[in-house]
Amino acid sequence: MKIIMIGFGLVGQGLAQILRDKADELRSRQGFTARIVGVVTASKGNLYHADGLDIDGLLRAAESGSFASYPEDNQLRRDLEARQLIKRAEADVLVEVSPTDLQTAQPALDYCRLALKNGLHLVLANKGPVALGYRSLNAAAAESNLQMRYEATVMAGTPTLHVAEDALAGCAISAARGILNGTTNYILTQMEDGLPYADALNQAQALGYAETDPSGDVEGWDAAGKILILANAIFGSALTMNDLQVEGITKISQDDIAAAKANDQRYKLIAEVSADGGSVAPRRLPLNDPLASVGGATNAITFDTDLMGAITLIGAGAGQLETGYALLSDLLAIHRSSAL
Amino acid sequence: MKIIMIGFGLVGQGLAQILRDKADELRSRQGFTARIVGVVTASKGNLYHADGLDIDGLLRAAESGSFASYPEDNQLRRDLEARQLIKRAEADVLVEVSPTDLQTAQPALDYCRLALKNGLHLVLANKGPVALGYRSLNAAAAESNLQMRYEATVMAGTPTLHVAEDALAGCAISAARGILNGTTNYILTQMEDGLPYADALNQAQALGYAETDPSGDVEGWDAAGKILILANAIFGSALTMNDLQVEGITKISQDDIAAAKANDQRYKLIAEVSADGGSVAPRRLPLNDPLASVGGATNAITFDTDLMGAITLIGAGAGQLETGYALLSDLLAIHRSSAL
Repeated sequence: MKIIMIGFGLVGQGLAQILRDKADELRSRQGFTARIVGVVTASKGNLYHADGLDIDGLLRAAESGSFASYPEDNQLRRDLEARQLIKRAEADVLVEVSPTDLQTAQPALDYCRLALKNGLHLVLANKGPVALGYRSLNAAAAESNLQMRYEATVMAGTPTLHVAEDALAGCAISAARGILNGTTNYILTQMEDGLPYADALNQAQALGYAETDPSGDVEGWDAAGKILILANAIFGSALTMNDLQVEGITKISQDDIAAAKANDQRYKLIAEVSADGGSVAPRRLPLNDPLASVGGATNAITFDTDLMGAITLIGAGAGQLETGYALLSDLLAIHRSSAL
Repeated sequence: MKIIMIGFGLVGQGLAQILRDKADELRSRQGFTARIVGVVTASKGNLYHADGLDIDGLLRAAESGSFASYPEDNQLRRDLEARQLIKRAEADVLVEVSPTDLQTAQPALDYCRLALKNGLHLVLANKGPVALGYRSLNAAAAESNLQMRYEATVMAGTPTLHVAEDALAGCAISAARGILNGTTNYILTQMEDGLPYADALNQAQALGYAETDPSGDVEGWDAAGKILILANAIFGSALTMNDLQVEGITKISQDDIAAAKANDQRYKLIAEVSADGGSVAPRRLPLNDPLASVGGATNAITFDTDLMGAITLIGAGAGQLETGYALLSDLLAIHRSSAL
């Protein structure tokens, strides 16, 4: 499988590491071999080699901040921009791991369309094109008998979409509700342990969970983007951000948390969706709800189904290798379906 | 897909109901159509019709206790025993849903071997052949390019094996531990609420969770059979029942449970396995372990992986439709892999 990548930040580097470290195992156990033939970035430069790039060299160059230090080679090209790479590279899959923009999804959305037009499967960690362009991308992919996969966009490599779409294929899912943002769950868990909101947020920032401007997390927008993606995947709905009621955790006080505790309840930022619409809001859950037991930066999702009742999946929601693994699991799914 | 079934108890009838009630949805959404062409039972009789049996008629006859009341038809045969049916039926899959025998796995094990020899995929709810004959069946299936699937044997239709084998295919699983027996989890949950062991057991029996002779559940053997199946699936190990340390819940007193509670812990009957071996035993879990929050007859499993850390799956572990769905999910997986 020949891969081109747009973006080569932590997550893209995570995938590259895994492909390098697991090469033997993936070959022997899954019959899977992959080469990264091209990488385009906003700040490090671009690289293309038809025979495949050297992953060690790629990771070292990325660490140095620029692909200028990647070893020279006759057939190496440094001049191909994203559109040129998508059109000219001999490749099977575009891995889109550039930063998410939930306002316009651009330029990634255009790149994805171009990739499908050029016969490339799509694998995304970038939430933008999936949250905002799902319907048109999905239709274009189906038309060309190509796959669009995006396990990395919801709960990193915890197999949320795999379970919803494949493992539960014969069930009707009527609703999904979950803890889809690790930063806010970490903050709420710390508040439960007695920390005021501001201190818990500081701690989350110090640990690298929350960004300097934490509003995307604490006001619920990150969780909203993810539940939107799930809604589209499960219900084929054409929901947009405007259809969601979104409230974050900024108004939750320690008094609120104490009041919940006194009633054997616990506050969680719950993203939920059904065929009728969705929301993100702090909810008081009874302690025997599996979601109530999910502490720290861990994520979780409960699917309500017709035949199986509630099915809950708990796992990592972020992390370099965890998100890199999500990309690998999508590549393996494409490999399995085209190999058979 | 043409299906023959050995056994037609509650679980087999559950599958038949689902195939009937979801026929349109399965056709339109999954491109899947299935006919049950033959059924062999120990007490109700046998039926075979090359064009497919009428599911309503089949369910009504099963309810009456005998297939004698199934409507007559020129091409209907009532004389084919299991071996004859496997050899002569034009079919794609054998669904083995006769009662589990963890001592010998017979006669189901021989039927499974014969089915593979005759080009049939295998789907099992019967734990015996998987727990005791995994290696030879798996090798025979691989040799003939056939599939052996057994989602129903562990946690009913909660996609335990699907997650372990497909969704986590690129991860190395180092260990699995879970609550794999709903009856004992129900009893422990009731004891936690103050009921003595004997009363909790009586209640479980009244609800149909526990059998009249509850020893298979309360002494840990049911959970042991399931963790053995998981061990074989995950590690390709050749563990047998003798390799497992098995202890049930019969020695757990209310004092034990109170002592755990005082330490913010909770007793659960935990089945666990790694490449080195496995065990079933009551364990005291801290309340923040996701498995500790699993109450009543619900089941759960945690996989420890290299790239994703811990992944936990919580869902039903029994039930007619829940186990019937497990069989459907295996049939769909076979359909997907042969359709592509």
